[in-house]
Amino acid sequence: MRRFEWPVRVYYEDTDAGGVVYYANYLKYLERGRTEWLRHLGFGQEQLMRDSGIVFAVRHVEIDYLVPARFDDALVVQVEIAALSKVSITFHQRLLRTPDRVLTEAKVKVVCLDKEKFRPVAIPVDIREAIDAHQ
Amino acid sequence: MRRFEWPVRVYYEDTDAGGVVYYANYLKYLERGRTEWLRHLGFGQEQLMRDSGIVFAVRHVEIDYLVPARFDDALVVQVEIAALSKVSITFHQRLLRTPDRVLTEAKVKVVCLDKEKFRPVAIPVDIREAIDAHQ
Amino acid sequence: MRRFEWPVRVYYEDTDAGGVVYYANYLKYLERGRTEWLRHLGFGQEQLMRDSGIVFAVRHVEIDYLVPARFDDALVVQVEIAALSKVSITFHQRLLRTPDRVLTEAKVKVVCLDKEKFRPVAIPVDIREAIDAHQ
Amino acid sequence: MRRFEWPVRVYYEDTDAGGVVYYANYLKYLERGRTEWLRHLGFGQEQLMRDSGIVFAVRHVEIDYLVPARFDDALVVQVEIAALSKVSITFHQRLLRTPDRVLTEAKVKVVCLDKEKFRPVAIPVDIREAIDAHQ
Repeated sequence: MRRFEWPVRVYYEDTDAGGVVYYANYLKYLERGRTEWLRHLGFGQEQLMRDSGIVFAVRHVEIDYLVPARFDDALVVQVEIAALSKVSITFHQRLLRTPDRVLTEAKVKVVCLDKEKFRPVAIPVDIREAIDAHQ
Repeated sequence: MRRFEWPVRVYYEDTDAGGVVYYANYLKYLERGRTEWLRHLGFGQEQLMRDSGIVFAVRHVEIDYLVPARFDDALVVQVEIAALSKVSITFHQRLLRTPDRVLTEAKVKVVCLDKEKFRPVAIPVDIREAIDAHQ
Repeated sequence: MRRFEWPVRVYYEDTDAGGVVYYANYLKYLERGRTEWLRHLGFGQEQLMRDSGIVFAVRHVEIDYLVPARFDDALVVQVEIAALSKVSITFHQRLLRTPDRVLTEAKVKVVCLDKEKFRPVAIPVDIREAIDAHQ
Repeated sequence: MRRFEWPVRVYYEDTDAGGVVYYANYLKYLERGRTEWLRHLGFGQEQLMRDSGIVFAVRHVEIDYLVPARFDDALVVQVEIAALSKVSITFHQRLLRTPDRVLTEAKVKVVCLDKEKFRPVAIPVDIREAIDAHQ
């Protein structure tokens, strides 16, 4: 299964008084990775919201903080699909300090929702096809 | 002219690797103050958006960072009206470390907008009346 | 085992374009709860860093997003100890919309670290005693 | 005077329930621009903190919010020096939606501080020389 990678730089905004990246902010990096993976497949989320009336919402996260990321670090966020159902995608994601030190490891489950009712709906066919085409 | 005050606590999330509150996050404190001032007048912004179709958007900020706020500090954010027009409110705001050390001083201009078109509209009459009643 | 509760208000800063609280920001609420729980036991983290040379760092988070929190919501964050070892505390935390709708449920493991070397050290005796006294 | 530019993408983390970028988050973009400008001159701030014992702290911001940035927008942040003193740099910064729509315009004054005492100190000579060389 193919792995998608996206570079992330640590700025002041991401750090806390402990001198390292604040624990909630790693989730921002993970989401930038998923957003860019989807854009790489050909889908902008703004457009999905407007044209298909769907949003992807996070339902579950498990994350291990192994090594702290520091101010000015050049990182890479990895995106892999661990499981795919009719309405959800479960990602395996890692954040690395270049070239190969794993800082955090996470499992993130997102669900495809109707943007008005916030009810699960089937992932659009063209997204499923793009996912299959890139595996 | 009456001054409204609201307490704010500095958490890890607000600080950066310099050990003090990150400069953008002071604007969050200022907005919490304005939100609670409006709630104190009887208006929730969620309700204003839903029932009156308006949002208040910031058009201009001038802020002086005088003394840094630190992790765990107990702060107070102050809200005063400096000017009021048909479509905008200009606030004078200060952030203090209890009891009276001024950390930041700011002027913030917000404009009342139609939430769909993002065009300026008149501030609702009941808000103007509540502002007058509290001066 | 006793449960600690702390109120949280949802502001604009916490929400995203989906109209609900951004998924990373729930972790901020959870941490405010843990910080206030520790303060309730008599310990400020700024002081712990300065006087005892320790910081508590998050090692693992599991979180279920059940119901989204919305702009202007009045929430309560709950803190309970699920497990306690020599160097770590595992919390069971929930975020509720007043009075009793559970929005998120989480398990958070924090480790006591030497603030310079970022190596695990024993939780200070006075904190352990305060925890025991409050059970 | 030369202008430095850096690309910025708007993610969910940056937006609020109004559907646009939250007003405080524009200041993050501005700072990423200044950080990358300094890196472009050859100076990482982590290194400056460690080796020269200095940090750059923001003292004053004036910002006009002209047009809101939206989710998924591709932006460019511009950095120009408006004034340079012995201890401070005043930047003129703009945020544009590609190719040339100006969204925000700002003046930001930063002061060079001793990182321990938070007192103003002279900007290091090698930074001044690099600034001169790039004008």
